[in-house]
Amino acid sequence: MAVFDQIEGLQDDLRLVDVYVDEYLHDESGHTGLRSVLNEINATGGKKVRPMVLLLAGRFGPKWPGCRERLCKMGAAVEMIHTASLIHDDIVDDSPLRRGRQTVQSKFGKEMAVYAGDFVLSRIVYYLFKEASTEAGMLLAKTVEVMCYGEIGQLARSYDTETTIEDYLSNIFGKTASLFVAACAIGAMESGCGEKTSMLLRQIGEHIGYLFQLRDDLLNVTSSARQEGKPVHSDFMNGTYTMPIIHALHHPAGRRLREVIHTIGTGAAVSWEVEEEIQNIVNSSRGIEFTRETIDAHAAQARDLLESLPKVPVRQGFLEILDLLAAG
Amino acid sequence: MAVFDQIEGLQDDLRLVDVYVDEYLHDESGHTGLRSVLNEINATGGKKVRPMVLLLAGRFGPKWPGCRERLCKMGAAVEMIHTASLIHDDIVDDSPLRRGRQTVQSKFGKEMAVYAGDFVLSRIVYYLFKEASTEAGMLLAKTVEVMCYGEIGQLARSYDTETTIEDYLSNIFGKTASLFVAACAIGAMESGCGEKTSMLLRQIGEHIGYLFQLRDDLLNVTSSARQEGKPVHSDFMNGTYTMPIIHALHHPAGRRLREVIHTIGTGAAVSWEVEEEIQNIVNSSRGIEFTRETIDAHAAQARDLLESLPKVPVRQGFLEILDLLAAG
Repeated sequence: MAVFDQIEGLQDDLRLVDVYVDEYLHDESGHTGLRSVLNEINATGGKKVRPMVLLLAGRFGPKWPGCRERLCKMGAAVEMIHTASLIHDDIVDDSPLRRGRQTVQSKFGKEMAVYAGDFVLSRIVYYLFKEASTEAGMLLAKTVEVMCYGEIGQLARSYDTETTIEDYLSNIFGKTASLFVAACAIGAMESGCGEKTSMLLRQIGEHIGYLFQLRDDLLNVTSSARQEGKPVHSDFMNGTYTMPIIHALHHPAGRRLREVIHTIGTGAAVSWEVEEEIQNIVNSSRGIEFTRETIDAHAAQARDLLESLPKVPVRQGFLEILDLLAAG
Repeated sequence: MAVFDQIEGLQDDLRLVDVYVDEYLHDESGHTGLRSVLNEINATGGKKVRPMVLLLAGRFGPKWPGCRERLCKMGAAVEMIHTASLIHDDIVDDSPLRRGRQTVQSKFGKEMAVYAGDFVLSRIVYYLFKEASTEAGMLLAKTVEVMCYGEIGQLARSYDTETTIEDYLSNIFGKTASLFVAACAIGAMESGCGEKTSMLLRQIGEHIGYLFQLRDDLLNVTSSARQEGKPVHSDFMNGTYTMPIIHALHHPAGRRLREVIHTIGTGAAVSWEVEEEIQNIVNSSRGIEFTRETIDAHAAQARDLLESLPKVPVRQGFLEILDLLAAG
């Protein structure tokens, strides 16, 4: 990633995040089952976008670089919250694959996935208390709460063809944007940013979170999604209607889409022809373009906010991330 | 419960525990689904044995009664950990009933149960940080970790006819006894007990935890279990072999029990005749008597330890609880 070349030491910091994740997830139980799950989690390690955002935000305050180690510890906590949420989400989605590999629930069973997620959460909490990170601890607890609201909100709208863009945005704020906001807030807090810088960083985090989830959802309805290791249209088939679909549902072509949805019912596999028809309806309603425009709008707003931040070299890092995530 | 008459103010303290549970679980999301779950949790409210043990332990230290309010807050946190664990366990067990009512997962779906459990956990953590309870926070995080080990250990021994009494005891330590130990440790800590009293209380908590789970498991193989709102032999049918069954498996009659297990396979419903045969084998191996003797032994050890504690009136309360739990 080009951002690593631009930002001195960022690659090292991310390696330190990994070291802390390993330390925090160290399993003393000797249960081979849990060890296999933890190895699997390590093997499927993501791109660590959330810790990266936290580390970048943590370079705007006067305490940097003295707060470097603490930022890496907090980055590890944020990444682990993301991991725990993925493990629990996969139970709900019944997903066979995540990042191109089998999910914990499909490989080790729902039972193990419930407790593996709880185990990861208990470890984060333990280390947050140990590090005496009261403020970060409260913030992250509130964030997990809001993440639950987002997921529950999404469940409530499951297979609901009347769901609105507002419902969707509210749910993805909870599911995804809230943890990006928390990452920025903690970076700002640990590096001693003033209230104005901190607020700007939190707003940037929110835009990044929205565009990150929008891009993810968009990939799920475009053919290139297969490369992400998740079946195309799996959200749609699971009854999770994302922006391109909701846009189409509120378009004149949405009438036909509703008919298709009612015909296929819940949870059913669909033929290639039906999949193509869905794609055609989404295309004709310009659902994909609308989503892309929304992503670009969030990126543009984040860029504007970045302009107001102190002119430290790390601004460029945020721009790189924005370009990367917005391009998708 | 007679214990309330003996211990002045205990009933009031437990009411205050309820007030804090309500406050901590207050839901700001407005999601009707989550609100229904939380109402359901309140309606099925348990006997609050864990907070009661914490409150009793909290009367041995010099800081009592000054620490009263804090004890009630910690009692609420301990009860909520228990609640969250029940919600997540029911997903794993696929249990239709708990305390005679429908479980969250059977009434609202597994999805809701995953997030409702996570929501409850996030709230506990938030308030522990808010109350600046670092020591209690670390202890409870470790306890949740050990609870996961117990549950994972139980999963690992699922449908395993070679499982031993040692495996079983290790798993019920994690599942149940660990939270009773934590309740006693926090009671001791908050009330300022010295190390010796604290250690005695933790040991008493461990014995109470063991006998509590042993009694619960015993009820599941005796006919009076139906009154508890859980089907008789549901543990056995789910492949969780508890002390009476494990004892029978290691008895000469265990050979026939293994044959029955292999015949019925996993997860199958069994006829009344098969159920009776299982009961006969358990009876002939004296599995029930052995379990009862073990319960009595834990109660006796706890009583001995109580004798070593300072002679405050609350000792009688512990004895009442012991008698109540041991009698079953």
